[in-house]
Amino acid sequence: MEYEAFFRRQIDRLRADGNYRVFAEIERQAGNFPRAVLHNPPTGHPGENGAPREITIWCSNDYLGMGQHPDVLAAMHDAIDRLGAGAGGTRNISGTSIAHVELERELASLHGKESALLFASGYMSNWATLGTIAARLPGCIVLSDAGNHASMIEGIRHSRAERHIFAHNDPADLDRILATLPADAPKIVAFESVYSMDGDIAPIAAICDVADKHGAMTYLDEVHAVGLYGPQGAGIAARDGVADRLTIVEGTLGKGFGVVGGYIAASDALCDFVRSFASGYIFSTALPPAIAAGACASIRAVRAADGLRARHADRVRAVRAALDQAGVPHQLNPSHIVPVIVGDPIKTRLLTDRLLTRHGIYVQPINYPTVPRGTERLRLTPSPLHSDQDIAQLATALGAEWAELNLAESA
Amino acid sequence: MEYEAFFRRQIDRLRADGNYRVFAEIERQAGNFPRAVLHNPPTGHPGENGAPREITIWCSNDYLGMGQHPDVLAAMHDAIDRLGAGAGGTRNISGTSIAHVELERELASLHGKESALLFASGYMSNWATLGTIAARLPGCIVLSDAGNHASMIEGIRHSRAERHIFAHNDPADLDRILATLPADAPKIVAFESVYSMDGDIAPIAAICDVADKHGAMTYLDEVHAVGLYGPQGAGIAARDGVADRLTIVEGTLGKGFGVVGGYIAASDALCDFVRSFASGYIFSTALPPAIAAGACASIRAVRAADGLRARHADRVRAVRAALDQAGVPHQLNPSHIVPVIVGDPIKTRLLTDRLLTRHGIYVQPINYPTVPRGTERLRLTPSPLHSDQDIAQLATALGAEWAELNLAESA
Repeated sequence: MEYEAFFRRQIDRLRADGNYRVFAEIERQAGNFPRAVLHNPPTGHPGENGAPREITIWCSNDYLGMGQHPDVLAAMHDAIDRLGAGAGGTRNISGTSIAHVELERELASLHGKESALLFASGYMSNWATLGTIAARLPGCIVLSDAGNHASMIEGIRHSRAERHIFAHNDPADLDRILATLPADAPKIVAFESVYSMDGDIAPIAAICDVADKHGAMTYLDEVHAVGLYGPQGAGIAARDGVADRLTIVEGTLGKGFGVVGGYIAASDALCDFVRSFASGYIFSTALPPAIAAGACASIRAVRAADGLRARHADRVRAVRAALDQAGVPHQLNPSHIVPVIVGDPIKTRLLTDRLLTRHGIYVQPINYPTVPRGTERLRLTPSPLHSDQDIAQLATALGAEWAELNLAESA
Repeated sequence: MEYEAFFRRQIDRLRADGNYRVFAEIERQAGNFPRAVLHNPPTGHPGENGAPREITIWCSNDYLGMGQHPDVLAAMHDAIDRLGAGAGGTRNISGTSIAHVELERELASLHGKESALLFASGYMSNWATLGTIAARLPGCIVLSDAGNHASMIEGIRHSRAERHIFAHNDPADLDRILATLPADAPKIVAFESVYSMDGDIAPIAAICDVADKHGAMTYLDEVHAVGLYGPQGAGIAARDGVADRLTIVEGTLGKGFGVVGGYIAASDALCDFVRSFASGYIFSTALPPAIAAGACASIRAVRAADGLRARHADRVRAVRAALDQAGVPHQLNPSHIVPVIVGDPIKTRLLTDRLLTRHGIYVQPINYPTVPRGTERLRLTPSPLHSDQDIAQLATALGAEWAELNLAESA
């Protein structure tokens, strides 16, 4: 077996399909978001010179710009000075800092739940929580929304529990499937609030109604909503007044809160169960205390920042209006995510390359496996930090490049 | 289905078995390691008062105390000031900072490989890499050491590849099993260098010989070795002069390097393959730039610090000698990990409770599932920062409590 040749062939196939990814090397500048310096043009075009240049980021998941908030940076500095760099161990073996405990209390409070549990990443929180509960509840059946994130899918798959996929955001289909299952079997309905690539939002109350009717637990991924929606930024479930109906809310500290890490919030017993049995929780080094402290400061600032959320919503409206004016079709949805569908990986790359090299606008092309083939896109994420001028520049540039590539028809 | 009652029953069973874990809430003090302040006595004993108290940590995986190294803290401070808190996205979508790129180059250089890939945690690096390669190499068969870490086991399990367990650290058994398998099938031999709970070390060269004979790739987990062994702290494979024989070396930034995160180092093609296909890599927010910068500074400091490694080895010898003097049996091994086997979860907890409450010595009891039932233990991890006085105090206290609990016979 020629292993190296195998790996190279797989990579060559990605290149041929237009799905090979070159990471943009970015130097974000605290105090100057969404401006940054790009160190490698990720286009790979011959003749492109590699000199660093200033860019405006239009595809960050640091949705509110909390990654440069003074309270967050100050809390991180302070924790490093007091507590050092790393946690020094797993949560059980010397790795639980007072900063972790304080953050978990803050998260439980944010979601109105008894407890919360912190993970190294949102991916791990979904994978470990679903993987553990579905595997350990005898005879558990998982009902999974067709649009769920890879981390949920992998967690469910890992559990080896029986799994049924219900049509995306479709409570009636969920109801139909649940009606065919044994009434006394334990069940989990797993779904998201804001879907990251299309920006559509789940009918949470209706899904909870169906789950309740059939005695199923509910697991809601709010990673693209926490910080951004609802009272104190507690998410879509809180906005809809149904947070107490969710068995488990999962979220991230790496998007709206601008740091890194994942979590769940749920009852004391459920969190204690996951804490005690999830391999990915037990056997991972705890996040550095400075990360926990920064995230905690961010949550506190975001909870109080209704103005920030209003500004964010305003910027999203402004981007959509500017794109309309510029003749760039964008997919409508009720969230902050503005998808511009191109539908082909090579054209998408060409468009983003031109935005970057001609206009200094950085939007990473989104291709398979992040989105289905044929729906390749730009995914614009306006933030409260994008100015009117930034928005005008984006719309003008995108409008011009869109027209030049004759993309209007393909959208 | 009464979900809450189910979760509570499972927790109650853990308590009854003596396997329920209470996390110690610790305030490590940068500049003062291994000293810390304990905020909750994790004993749960009635009458115990909860006032914070100073303790000495004897169970940290921050093996070299790099979590308080001035270079590491300075690099983190600097990165926060320049680049902000979080990375702002996945590695592909705006999350690759110059700090990540620099760290991956440093890691590749440390291990003498073409490339390296950074993950949110060591758990994720094992799980995602083994899970991806074993699943995507058609007909791949995995040979897994019987002592492998949970994260490797879960990754292999997740891949659904055919798997064979070979006897722990036994190249002859590996050879015997490989001889029964189809010669042309792709194969991966997955093992560790230093095993974390027994502290024994793999015969890496002999295992590579067998793997080569049968055309298998080799995957070596060096998480408990990097920073500590070999030239520049590159690990046991480097110490043994066989680093170039390993297809993949996996390591952590959260133990010897004192920060957090996991990685692999391997060929360009292999790293590019994992980068392009591993769901856990693609769909995770990148580590904060400050974490990458701190880890990079730590590696550079550790590479130059042969004195630190010598001091570490000296402290381990001193602890073993002191325990011998005090009549405390400890399991012999060639590493820095000093296991003191008690063999019962309740007695182990009692012993560590007394060390904590009577002597201010913090050693977390290690129980199932971290070690097999019946081998519950103390796992002492001497660091270069433990003084002669710390060691004398540990040995005296442990000797006295060990005798009082009449544990000598059970060991």
